[in-house]
Amino acid sequence: MRHNHFLNALAIALVLTQGSLAHARNNGDGNRESLVIEAQGGFAFDGTVITDPAGSGKTFHCDHGYAEYQIPSNARDLPIVMWHSTSTKTWTGDRAAGTPDGFQEIFVHRSFPVYIIDLPRQGRGGDSCLSTSFTPTIGRDQRTFESWRQGVWAPPAPPMFFPNSQAPRTPDYLNQLLRARYPDNEVFPDTDSLEASSVAKLLERIGPAILFTHSGSGKRGWLTAIQSSNVKGIVSFEPSIEVFPPGEVPGAGTGGSAQLEVPLADFRKLTQFPILIVFGDNIDAQVPIIQASWPAALAHARAFVASVNSHGGNAQLIHLPDIGIFGNSHLMMLELNNIEIADVVSGFLREEQLDKQEGHSAP
Amino acid sequence: MRHNHFLNALAIALVLTQGSLAHARNNGDGNRESLVIEAQGGFAFDGTVITDPAGSGKTFHCDHGYAEYQIPSNARDLPIVMWHSTSTKTWTGDRAAGTPDGFQEIFVHRSFPVYIIDLPRQGRGGDSCLSTSFTPTIGRDQRTFESWRQGVWAPPAPPMFFPNSQAPRTPDYLNQLLRARYPDNEVFPDTDSLEASSVAKLLERIGPAILFTHSGSGKRGWLTAIQSSNVKGIVSFEPSIEVFPPGEVPGAGTGGSAQLEVPLADFRKLTQFPILIVFGDNIDAQVPIIQASWPAALAHARAFVASVNSHGGNAQLIHLPDIGIFGNSHLMMLELNNIEIADVVSGFLREEQLDKQEGHSAP
Repeated sequence: MRHNHFLNALAIALVLTQGSLAHARNNGDGNRESLVIEAQGGFAFDGTVITDPAGSGKTFHCDHGYAEYQIPSNARDLPIVMWHSTSTKTWTGDRAAGTPDGFQEIFVHRSFPVYIIDLPRQGRGGDSCLSTSFTPTIGRDQRTFESWRQGVWAPPAPPMFFPNSQAPRTPDYLNQLLRARYPDNEVFPDTDSLEASSVAKLLERIGPAILFTHSGSGKRGWLTAIQSSNVKGIVSFEPSIEVFPPGEVPGAGTGGSAQLEVPLADFRKLTQFPILIVFGDNIDAQVPIIQASWPAALAHARAFVASVNSHGGNAQLIHLPDIGIFGNSHLMMLELNNIEIADVVSGFLREEQLDKQEGHSAP
Repeated sequence: MRHNHFLNALAIALVLTQGSLAHARNNGDGNRESLVIEAQGGFAFDGTVITDPAGSGKTFHCDHGYAEYQIPSNARDLPIVMWHSTSTKTWTGDRAAGTPDGFQEIFVHRSFPVYIIDLPRQGRGGDSCLSTSFTPTIGRDQRTFESWRQGVWAPPAPPMFFPNSQAPRTPDYLNQLLRARYPDNEVFPDTDSLEASSVAKLLERIGPAILFTHSGSGKRGWLTAIQSSNVKGIVSFEPSIEVFPPGEVPGAGTGGSAQLEVPLADFRKLTQFPILIVFGDNIDAQVPIIQASWPAALAHARAFVASVNSHGGNAQLIHLPDIGIFGNSHLMMLELNNIEIADVVSGFLREEQLDKQEGHSAP
C-alpha cells in the first residue's frame, strides 16, 4: 500500500491534537478520538473447492475463513489478527450504546492494522464442505453466563453478576452477551487443524503478524505458530487448552480439559516469539461450572509458560488480580475497564518491540 | 452521541485537504482518501428467547440479526442500512488487494453513517431458534456465476466473463465471488417476515434511515417499509420480487418469480418515500438461467414502479445501459466502475434530499 507522507503528517497532527483535548474523552476511557482509516475491506481466505464425484466438472467453494481489516493512517509494522472462539462481538464494542469500544477499535486507534476474522463454517466464514445440522440448546444462556464467569444464574432466580463484575450495566448488555455466540463449529472433528491451517494461510497474504486469541482459539493459535513463522507474537486471553512437549503434559490428576502433546521440534517453535497470557478474576468462585474448569485452565497455562521458558522461550502470564485489576470475566475485552487491560497488552507489545512503526506494506 | 465541533472542524479540514490532492487518488476512482470515523461498533438486534417447555426456566437467545456501524465525522442525518441477500461481502471492498472499495467504504467516505447487517440465522446473525441442516451443493458455483450474470460457465470449459464485464480482473476475484455466500437462510419458511420485522426493530434503535437492498432482500425491504415509518428512502439493486396491490399483480404469463400481493393500505405506505431501483447489463444475454429470470425481474420492477407512481408515490428505475453504463452484473456494487454507480445513487439521494447534514444523533 502506497503511503502519502503529507497525509500521514496531517493525520498524525489530528491524532496528537485530539489526544491533548481532555474534553474529547469520555469518562476517562481515553479512547474517544476519531479513527483515521487509510484502508478497510474484507476477503475470504484459505478454503477448498469440492468437485462433482460424478465427473460433471461442477464445483462448490467452501471451508474458507473471512477477514475484515482496518489499516489506520501512520500504521505500525505488525498487524494484529483478532481470533475469536465465539463470535466477532468478542472484539467489537458499541460506543453508540454507551458501552466501551472493543479491542478492535482500541487497537486501530493505537495505530495497529487490525484483522477481525471468522473461521471456516462460522459467521462470515460461511459455507462448510461438510454437511452439518444445528439444534437450539435450551440452557446454553445459563451455562454461558456462569462459564464465562459473569456470576450465578439459577432459574427461576434472575442472573446475578459477581459483586465486583466489570460488565457494563446498560440494560442491554446481558442480552448482547448471550447473543455473542455463533452455532458451534467445534461439532466438526477437524476444527483445530482446519482453523490453524486457515490462519497460517491468512498470514501468507498479510505477512508477519501478532495473534490475539481467546478461549478455544488459544490452542489453535499455538498450532498456527507451529506451522507459520509469520507469527511474531501471541497475546492469548484465557486460553483453555495448551500444548506441551512429550513428558511435560500435566497429569490427569490436575483436572480440567485435555491438554495437547506435540513433538518437541514443534513445541520449540513456540520459543521463537514473545507470548503473553492474560487471565481475569473470579477464577476460584464457588460456582460448580467455574470450579470444574477455570482453576485447572489457569494452572495449565502457568505450566505452559514454564515449559516454553524452560526451552528458551519468552512467555509470561498475567493474572489480572495480581496486578490490582479486579472483577474481569472471560469477556474482559468488552468490559468497563478494558482500556486498562489494553494498556497492559500495549505495555507488553512495546516491551517486546512488537509495536514498531516503520510503514506497513500492502497485505 | 456528543459532537465536538472543534474535532469536527479539524476532520473536515483534513477531508477537504485530502480531496484536493490529486495524487492521493488511485486511477481516478475518486475514493482513495482516508476515512475519518467518529464511532464504530456492532450489536445484535431483534431476537427471541426460547424457554424450556419443561419449566426449568432455562433459556436460549436466538433469531437476532447483527449490525455493524461506522459513523463518520461530520455525518449526514440519515444513515444507510446495507442489507445483503447473500453475504456482507456484497458491500465490502478490498482496496488492499487492488479491487475497488465497496459501497460500505464509499458511502462512509461520502459522510453517511453506514450499517452493515446480517439477518437472523446467517453470518453474524448466528443462532437460529429453529433446528436446521446444511448440505454442500455441488454446482452452485456454476449457477452463481451465470445467475449473477458474470458470464457463461459450462464445465469442462473454464468460466468466461461477458466481454463487457466490469468484474475486477485480479486473479483472486472469481474465488472471492464464489465465496461471497452464506448457507442459505431461505430454507426457513418464515424468512421474509422474520427479516422484515427484524429490520423494523433495528430502525427502532437507530431511527429514520435509508435502506439499500439487493436481490432477495429487495422484497423484504418493501415489507419493512410497510411495517416501519422509519424507512425514509430505498435504493434497491436488482430486486427479484416486488409487492403489488390487489388487481395489479402481473399475470402469470409474464414468467419469472412469484410476485407478492399486499393489501392496498399497506401498498400505499410505499408511496410515502422516494424509491430508486437499479438494474445492470446483460439482462437479455442468451444464457438459459438468465433468460429464465432476469428479463421478467426487470419487467416486474418496471410494473412495480408504475404501480407506486399511479398511487401517488415517487419511484424510478434506472437500467444502467440506458444511461450509458455497460457491463455490470448482479454484483455491480463490487465492480470496477462502482464509483460511477455510487454517483448515480448519490445523485438520487441529493435530488430527494435524503443526504442532509444537520448532525446525526445517537443510534
